[in-house]
Amino acid sequence: MCILMRMTVRVAVAGASGYAGGEVLRLLLAHPEVEIGAVTAGGSAGTRLGQHQPHLLPLADRVLVDTTAERLAGHDVVFLALPHGHSAALAAQLGDDVLVIDCGADFRLADPAAWQRYYGGEHAGSWPYGLPELPLAGGGRQRDALRGARRIAVPGCYPTAASLALAPAAAAGLVEPDVVVVAVSGTSGAGRSLKPTLLGSEVMGSVSAYGVGGVHRHTPEIAQNLAAAGGEPVTVSFTPVLAPMPRGILATCTASLAGDADPAAVRKVYADAYDDEPFVHLLPEGAWPTTGATLGANALHLQVTVDADARRLVAVAAEDNLTKGTAGAAVQCMNIALDLPETTGLSTVGVAP
Amino acid sequence: MCILMRMTVRVAVAGASGYAGGEVLRLLLAHPEVEIGAVTAGGSAGTRLGQHQPHLLPLADRVLVDTTAERLAGHDVVFLALPHGHSAALAAQLGDDVLVIDCGADFRLADPAAWQRYYGGEHAGSWPYGLPELPLAGGGRQRDALRGARRIAVPGCYPTAASLALAPAAAAGLVEPDVVVVAVSGTSGAGRSLKPTLLGSEVMGSVSAYGVGGVHRHTPEIAQNLAAAGGEPVTVSFTPVLAPMPRGILATCTASLAGDADPAAVRKVYADAYDDEPFVHLLPEGAWPTTGATLGANALHLQVTVDADARRLVAVAAEDNLTKGTAGAAVQCMNIALDLPETTGLSTVGVAP
Amino acid sequence: MCILMRMTVRVAVAGASGYAGGEVLRLLLAHPEVEIGAVTAGGSAGTRLGQHQPHLLPLADRVLVDTTAERLAGHDVVFLALPHGHSAALAAQLGDDVLVIDCGADFRLADPAAWQRYYGGEHAGSWPYGLPELPLAGGGRQRDALRGARRIAVPGCYPTAASLALAPAAAAGLVEPDVVVVAVSGTSGAGRSLKPTLLGSEVMGSVSAYGVGGVHRHTPEIAQNLAAAGGEPVTVSFTPVLAPMPRGILATCTASLAGDADPAAVRKVYADAYDDEPFVHLLPEGAWPTTGATLGANALHLQVTVDADARRLVAVAAEDNLTKGTAGAAVQCMNIALDLPETTGLSTVGVAP
Amino acid sequence: MCILMRMTVRVAVAGASGYAGGEVLRLLLAHPEVEIGAVTAGGSAGTRLGQHQPHLLPLADRVLVDTTAERLAGHDVVFLALPHGHSAALAAQLGDDVLVIDCGADFRLADPAAWQRYYGGEHAGSWPYGLPELPLAGGGRQRDALRGARRIAVPGCYPTAASLALAPAAAAGLVEPDVVVVAVSGTSGAGRSLKPTLLGSEVMGSVSAYGVGGVHRHTPEIAQNLAAAGGEPVTVSFTPVLAPMPRGILATCTASLAGDADPAAVRKVYADAYDDEPFVHLLPEGAWPTTGATLGANALHLQVTVDADARRLVAVAAEDNLTKGTAGAAVQCMNIALDLPETTGLSTVGVAP
Repeated sequence: MCILMRMTVRVAVAGASGYAGGEVLRLLLAHPEVEIGAVTAGGSAGTRLGQHQPHLLPLADRVLVDTTAERLAGHDVVFLALPHGHSAALAAQLGDDVLVIDCGADFRLADPAAWQRYYGGEHAGSWPYGLPELPLAGGGRQRDALRGARRIAVPGCYPTAASLALAPAAAAGLVEPDVVVVAVSGTSGAGRSLKPTLLGSEVMGSVSAYGVGGVHRHTPEIAQNLAAAGGEPVTVSFTPVLAPMPRGILATCTASLAGDADPAAVRKVYADAYDDEPFVHLLPEGAWPTTGATLGANALHLQVTVDADARRLVAVAAEDNLTKGTAGAAVQCMNIALDLPETTGLSTVGVAP
Repeated sequence: MCILMRMTVRVAVAGASGYAGGEVLRLLLAHPEVEIGAVTAGGSAGTRLGQHQPHLLPLADRVLVDTTAERLAGHDVVFLALPHGHSAALAAQLGDDVLVIDCGADFRLADPAAWQRYYGGEHAGSWPYGLPELPLAGGGRQRDALRGARRIAVPGCYPTAASLALAPAAAAGLVEPDVVVVAVSGTSGAGRSLKPTLLGSEVMGSVSAYGVGGVHRHTPEIAQNLAAAGGEPVTVSFTPVLAPMPRGILATCTASLAGDADPAAVRKVYADAYDDEPFVHLLPEGAWPTTGATLGANALHLQVTVDADARRLVAVAAEDNLTKGTAGAAVQCMNIALDLPETTGLSTVGVAP
Repeated sequence: MCILMRMTVRVAVAGASGYAGGEVLRLLLAHPEVEIGAVTAGGSAGTRLGQHQPHLLPLADRVLVDTTAERLAGHDVVFLALPHGHSAALAAQLGDDVLVIDCGADFRLADPAAWQRYYGGEHAGSWPYGLPELPLAGGGRQRDALRGARRIAVPGCYPTAASLALAPAAAAGLVEPDVVVVAVSGTSGAGRSLKPTLLGSEVMGSVSAYGVGGVHRHTPEIAQNLAAAGGEPVTVSFTPVLAPMPRGILATCTASLAGDADPAAVRKVYADAYDDEPFVHLLPEGAWPTTGATLGANALHLQVTVDADARRLVAVAAEDNLTKGTAGAAVQCMNIALDLPETTGLSTVGVAP
Repeated sequence: MCILMRMTVRVAVAGASGYAGGEVLRLLLAHPEVEIGAVTAGGSAGTRLGQHQPHLLPLADRVLVDTTAERLAGHDVVFLALPHGHSAALAAQLGDDVLVIDCGADFRLADPAAWQRYYGGEHAGSWPYGLPELPLAGGGRQRDALRGARRIAVPGCYPTAASLALAPAAAAGLVEPDVVVVAVSGTSGAGRSLKPTLLGSEVMGSVSAYGVGGVHRHTPEIAQNLAAAGGEPVTVSFTPVLAPMPRGILATCTASLAGDADPAAVRKVYADAYDDEPFVHLLPEGAWPTTGATLGANALHLQVTVDADARRLVAVAAEDNLTKGTAGAAVQCMNIALDLPETTGLSTVGVAP
C-alpha cells in the first residue's frame, strides 16, 4: 500500500493538429498529474482532433477550438506548438502566473542580430532556454534557470542533439571552438507542411541535403549553446540532411582536439557530464547510437570517440526529434518549472524495432 | 490525495532477445503492478540485454540467462516468446499456480489434425485462447475463458486482426461462412530471423506475397475463431503480404452478404460488439484504418462497410502486430487472469506520425 | 557490322512535371526511334524541367511550356499525362493522324453509366484500350485493336495488374465471375498531389486502406476487362491499399473455382496465355512476385495457385505502377500503333535491390 | 539510315548472386557491345540466377557456376564482385590480355601500410584506379591511367562521392588539406550479408552511425584520392551513416577555406572541373542533391557553397552506391579500357520518384 499526493495541472495545447502539438498531447496523456483542457488549432478549428491525430484515441472526439488567448486562458500550463511569430502576442495576454512553454523558435535566441539574420523581423526577446542538461561554463546546468520559471523556450530539435553531443567537450576545453555538425533528420521535423519535397513519393528511398552553407536557422542556436557551455564564442558549420523516416535525428558532431586528449579521458568527461542525467544515455564503449532505439522516448543516446589521425573528437547523438527534440523536452521543462520530479510521466523506453 | 492498493507481480520473460520478447518487456516496464525478474535467451544468454534491445534503457544492463525451467521458476507470471515447439516442455516444469502466457503457436489450435497439417509433429494440446474481445456463438466473450486461467495461448498476429474484423458479422449471421482475407504486415512479424528476404535492402521499397494458397499457419486459426463466433465451420482464403515497415498489420476482410444487410445495420452490429471494448475502436464513418495510428498501442482500429454491387461486407482492421497482435494481448490476458483491471499498464495511444 | 533503318518519331508530352509524365519522358529518353519535342505543364509552365524532374538529366534545361493544342501540334505522337477531364478537348484539336495516347481515365470506360457513376459529368467516349496482352473472349488479344490506332487509352495502374492476373482464368472458364481483388500500391499512384495523407511523415511506416467498398474508380475498369476476357459480366470487389514505397503494385486476386481445376491445369492455362508475351512473366513454381523486382521495368510478374480448401484460385501480380502500370504501357502501345517492334526501347529489367 | 560498326565483347561476372554483381549484370544487359558469358557464385553455384536476382528477367534461367579461373577464362572482360581477398589469386590465373575489373577493395590502395592497417594481411598491390573524372595534381585526369589498361580497381562507393566532391577544391588549392566527410548510405552498400543490424525491421525508420572515428576502410582511400588531386597529404575525418533506403549515398564534405574564396570563384572551379564530364553533374545554383534522382543512374549530382561564417567550403554529392558508386563505374572503366565511347550503354537518367 502506498499513499500518493496528487496535484492536477490543467494544461492547454495550442497547435494541436500539428506534429509537435500531437506529440505534446501524446505525452500528456501518459502524465499522471495533468488534465488536458483546451486543444486549439488554426484552420482546423471546429474539427475533431481524431481526424488529424487518429493515434490519440482517448482524445479522438475532442473538438479543436481557435487558437486565441481567450481559449488558452484559465489553464495552469499552456504549450505553444505554433509556427514562429505567433508566440509573443499570445503569451502577452496570458497571466504571468501561467506557465507558457513555447515549442517554437521565437524566444530561443538571445542575440537580436542573430534573430534578425536567421528569422527576420523584430526580435521578441528570449526566455529561459529549455535544455536542462546543458552544462554551463561557470558550472551548473541550464536546469537551474528553469526552476519556477513561467516562460520557457523549448530548443530546436537539431540544437538539442548537437549541443548535448558537444557541450561536455566544450565545457572541458577538449576541443577547439570550431565545430562541424552534419545531422540527419526524419521528415516530421518539417511539420505537416504541404510541400512537394515532403511528399512520401519524394522522400522515400532518398536522402537529401538542405539549408547548406550555414543558412539553417538552428545554426546560431547551436553556437549559442556551445558558447554557453564553453565560455567562448564557437563557430558552427551545420548541415541538415533529410532521411526517409518519420522521426529521429542522428547528429554527427566533430571538432579539432585542443590538446592530447586520449579516448579514456574523453569518455570520462562525458560520463561525468551525463551519468546522473535521466534522459541522456552514454552508450557502452563500442556501441553507436541508432535513432530507432529512441522512437517515442524522452532519451538522447550518445557516443564519443577520438579520431587520432584526424585529431578530431567525434560525438554522435540520436534522439526522437518530436520527443526529446521537442515535446518531451517541453514536458520535462514543465516538470522542472512546477517542481514535479523531472521524470514524471516521461519514459526513456523507445518503441523498437 | 488518493490511496492505492498495489500488488506486485513478479514476471519472467523467455525469449527476451527477440522482437516479441522485447515488446513484452517494453510493455511490462510501463505496467505499475509488475516487477521484471528473469530475462532469458537461447544463443544470446550471457550477453547484456541492451546489446539486443537498445531501446529498453532501464534494462540495458540486465544479463540474459539461459531459457530453462530453473531460471523461469519462482515467478508469478512467465511469458514465453519462443519459436513454436518449446513451450510444452517448459510449461510442464512450471507449477500449475504459475501463470504461463505463451506468445507462440503451440497451444492455439484445438484441432490436432490442423496442428499436424500446418505445423507438423505432435499436438501439445490447447490452452485458453487469449483473444478476450472475441464474441462467441452462444453469447459471451472469449474473455470469460481467461479469468483465473494459469495457461494462456496468445493469438497469432494475423488472426487477431482478421478475427476481430469479421467476428461480429459472423456472430450476427450477416455473412456467408466463406471469407477472403488479405493482410499486409510489417517485417517484425517474421521475428529477428536472418533470412535474405528479410534484409532491409530487399524489403524496403517493395511489397511481396508469401504463404499464398491457404498454406500460411494462421489460416486454421482464423477459421477456428470465426467458427467460434459464428457457430458453424468457416472457410478462409488467407493471403499474407509483406510491406516495407517494421510494424503493423492491415487486414482487408470480405465475405458475401447472407441477406440484405444495409450499411447502417452492419455498422450497428459492429458498434454493439465493440463499443464497450477498450482496445477495439470502430472508427467514425468515412474514416479508414491506418496502421501508423496504432504503432506501439494496444489498440485495433476497425472500419466496416457494404459493397452493394459485389454484395460483400468489407471490414478493414489495423493493429500493431507486436502490441495488440502479440505482446499487448499477452499483458491484457495477464491482467484478466490475475483479476487486475484489464487496461492496467496498457495504452491505446499510438506513436505517430 | 549491321545496317539499321531508323525512323524518328517526334513526340510531345503533356503534363511533364507530374509523375506519369516524368516516367513517360524517362522511357522516351531510352527509346531509339524518338525525338522529344514539346514538354508541357499547367502551373509549372515557364520553369525548367530539371526543377521538377531532377532525375531526367538530359532534359534538365528544357523549359516547360503551357499545355495547349498549339504547343502539342506538330508532333507525330502526343502523350497526355493529365488529370482526367482534360484529354477530350485537347485531342479534338489534334489531327486524326496524330497518335494521341492518354494516360488519364477519360477514354477507358465504354459504358457511359459507369463513367458517370464513378467520375461524374459527361462521358467523352472510349478509345482503343491499351492493354495489349489482355486475352479476349472470342480469341485474340486486345493488341489487335491497337495496330494503326491513332487514339489510345492507357489502362489504370490497378486494372493492369488485376486484369492480367485474372483474365486467363476468366477466359478459360476456370473461375466464377465474382472476384475479390486487394491491391497494395506505392504512393506515386496518387500523383504529386499535396494532400496531408500523402506526406512522407504520414505514409512511412504505415499501411492504410482507402476507397473501400467498391467506390474506387478502377473498379468498373477491372470489371470491363474481365468481362472482355470471360465473355460474361463480372462482379468485382476491389480494395486498394497504400503502402510505404514510392512505386509498385501487388495485386492479390482471388475467385471461386468454377470446377475441379487442379494446380497443374491452372498453371498451364496461364503459361499458354503469357509464354509468348514479352512483358508478362509467369514466375517459376513456388516463387511469388515482389514489386521490387519490377522497379522501373515494363514487366508484370505473376504467380497463380489453387487453394483447395477454400476452393479458390489465387493469382498475385506485381508491377511498377508508373512503368508497366502507366508510362511503359503507353510506350508499348505507341510501338504497336506505329508498327515498331513492340519491345522497342522498353526493358523488362528492374532496378533492384 | 545509319551504319554502325559493332564489336561484341564477351564478359563474365564473378559474384553474380550479390548486389554489386547483380548491378553489373543489370548494366551489361543494356550495353550494346556486350555478350554476357559466365555468371559465377560461391555457395549459390548450381542455382538459377533468377532465384537471387528476380529483376534480371532476361537472365532468370542462367545457372550460376563456381567462381573459378577455369569458368572465368575465355572472356574478354571479367568483372569481379567478390569480398576482398579473392581477387589476386583469380586475376593471376587470367591472361594479361583479359581485362579484369575488380569491384572489391584488393587493389585500390597504393600504400601497403594503409592496406595492412585497414584490411589486414598482405597487400596484393595496386591497379589503375577506376575513377576517371578525378583531377590530378599535375593536370590531367585519372582517366588517362585507364586507357588500354587490363587491370582496374573500381573505387569504393563512399570514396567516389567524397573524392569527386572535394577534389576540384583540393586541386585548385581552395581548401586546407584537412577535410570532414559525413556520408549517408543505403543498406545495399553492405551487400547481402545476413547481419541482424541489416534486417529490414532494424533499418527501417532508423538512422545509425557505424565505423566512427576514422576506422572505416574507405578513409585511407579518400585520403589517397584527395592527395592525388591536391598534391599534398590530406587528413580525412570520415563518418559513415546508415539510412533506411536500399540505395544511395549522400556525402556532405567540408574543409576550411585556404584563402578568401568567394562562392562564385568556387563555383567556377567546380564548373571547370566537371562541365565536360558526362557523369558528374553540377546542379544549378540553389539546388541541392537528392539521392533519389540518381537511382540506377551512372551519375553523380553535386553542389558546392561557401559558409562564410564558418570559413568552410561545403560540397554535397549524391550518387547511387551500386551504380556510379560501383557497377556503373566498372562499366565506364571497361569502356575506357576498351576504347569504346565512355558513355556506351550507360545512362545518366535516374528512376524517380
